[in-house]
Amino acid sequence: MAVAANVESLVQAAGSHVPPLMEELEHRLAVLAGGHGEVLARHGGDTIAAGGKRLRPLLVFIVAGEAPAACAGLVRAAVAVELIHSATLVHDDVLDGARLRRGRPTVVAAGGRGVATATGDLLFSRAFAELALNGRPEEVQALSDASSALVQGELLQRADAFQPAAVTVERYLHRCELKTARLFVAACRLGASQSPLRPQPPPEPLGRFGRAVGLAFQLLDDVLDVSGPPERTGKARGTDLLDGTVTLPLILARQRDPDLARLDLRDVTTPGDAELVCQRIEAAGALEEARRHALAIVGEAKATLPGLPTRQRAALELVADGVVERYA
Amino acid sequence: MAVAANVESLVQAAGSHVPPLMEELEHRLAVLAGGHGEVLARHGGDTIAAGGKRLRPLLVFIVAGEAPAACAGLVRAAVAVELIHSATLVHDDVLDGARLRRGRPTVVAAGGRGVATATGDLLFSRAFAELALNGRPEEVQALSDASSALVQGELLQRADAFQPAAVTVERYLHRCELKTARLFVAACRLGASQSPLRPQPPPEPLGRFGRAVGLAFQLLDDVLDVSGPPERTGKARGTDLLDGTVTLPLILARQRDPDLARLDLRDVTTPGDAELVCQRIEAAGALEEARRHALAIVGEAKATLPGLPTRQRAALELVADGVVERYA
Repeated sequence: MAVAANVESLVQAAGSHVPPLMEELEHRLAVLAGGHGEVLARHGGDTIAAGGKRLRPLLVFIVAGEAPAACAGLVRAAVAVELIHSATLVHDDVLDGARLRRGRPTVVAAGGRGVATATGDLLFSRAFAELALNGRPEEVQALSDASSALVQGELLQRADAFQPAAVTVERYLHRCELKTARLFVAACRLGASQSPLRPQPPPEPLGRFGRAVGLAFQLLDDVLDVSGPPERTGKARGTDLLDGTVTLPLILARQRDPDLARLDLRDVTTPGDAELVCQRIEAAGALEEARRHALAIVGEAKATLPGLPTRQRAALELVADGVVERYA
Repeated sequence: MAVAANVESLVQAAGSHVPPLMEELEHRLAVLAGGHGEVLARHGGDTIAAGGKRLRPLLVFIVAGEAPAACAGLVRAAVAVELIHSATLVHDDVLDGARLRRGRPTVVAAGGRGVATATGDLLFSRAFAELALNGRPEEVQALSDASSALVQGELLQRADAFQPAAVTVERYLHRCELKTARLFVAACRLGASQSPLRPQPPPEPLGRFGRAVGLAFQLLDDVLDVSGPPERTGKARGTDLLDGTVTLPLILARQRDPDLARLDLRDVTTPGDAELVCQRIEAAGALEEARRHALAIVGEAKATLPGLPTRQRAALELVADGVVERYA
């Protein structure tokens, strides 16, 4: 997969301390998935294995900088962030009734709603158990705030479904902030908290960087849903439209194309309908504009990175670029 | 309501420090429910308000003993335990498609599955955020272990559904331990951790007491599902049977009544069927035996309470008796 290869090269470029940490992360995730009963070993393990890019743990590790020999606390922080992310994916799939994620059956498809809801709950619980071992209440606070925000973002998205006229760019960005960016912020804060560097990397500016990368990630993900192509994304164009989810490309296209502004999303009921709307959005130039918006956010994030060791700074810039390149 | 009045008198008898703590608990729960967006204010607030008996916070407060003027940490511990309990109820109702809980519409009935899953997730997150403020990692660990156990118990119950031959008394008790008793244990441990008494109450023996009270609570709840009467429980007899949930009364009755041993729970499809099975279970004497089992657990719990101030010991015995009386 192109995306995995992309991340693999990021891991290599991030510094020699990162690949062993990523291995340790995978090991710990596997142990956790296996340690809480048979049903969960199967489904929790599947979810975690299918979890993908590990972008959030990677951020934790890069922000922490060169790791010392004993790095259990740092790995726990990364594990906790990834578990919250996985828990959210499992519950999202329950609500969407999604059958496949990254080409594999979802937990809800394989085990039913009961198993999937419970699996998500367990992943939530284990995230906090893991992080508590670090003995730093401010870390638990950062993670639970991010996880609350995530849920609020998800709710906002459902409340706004099928109501394109109600979703301003500002409201859309606020939703992305809650749903995606806050967990990237938490990743950066936890990385700073666990850094062996003295002085530790400054958590506030790094949090701003994480926020920008998370926002850009979500914006470009939403662009990809409209742009496709399906052979690259593994799903038909316009699945968000079929769910009634109003994203930046549609918001911008509605400002340019009166027909789209009049469109009732409830009339978009088939993949064929969705494909036609995607073509209209693209023809209105809204994909390019949304991409430019994301690139501007990433550019500003890179420009405002605080003073950091050269190698660490370069690795963070690579992550930011990697998020963009994924969608180039 | 008889149950509420029962708890009200428990609160009064538990010591003069408890009623103001219970008020503080309600206040803090209301603030938390209201502080995370409009949708959640409505549904989270409803759930918490309908949350019932507050038995777990009561245990936290009694175990802690006489509280000092500043008791924020103690209230946070009680709030966190109650939030985990509420989160579980909300998710259970999603999975069961339950329409009513304690005579009020469930979150899933009022807001749909999306809102209810998210509401449960938010209550989970806020529980850990709240407890993290205490700055004691071992508290977060105790709570997340309880919450993981709870999920595993729920899964075990679903895995065993409709398989009475597979559910031994031992397996049933293990499920009750996971699903119910562990959160009572956590309540006792958190109460001990936040106690202003010197020396602090011993967490291990108190944990054993909490476990016994929790087990008895679950056993008697399962008896009540079979015994009714509906005008007292607010639901028809035998709802567990209709869900395929195998509980102690059925396990014991199957040992005594060959017809029940041959019964396929999938054939119990109407409330009328369930009522007939309940009558057979009762006629086999299994309700009395299950009750005796629960009473023995409570008796042992009271007998093995560690050395504690007289007033505190009396209050804990009252809680144990209260759990039993609820079902007398």
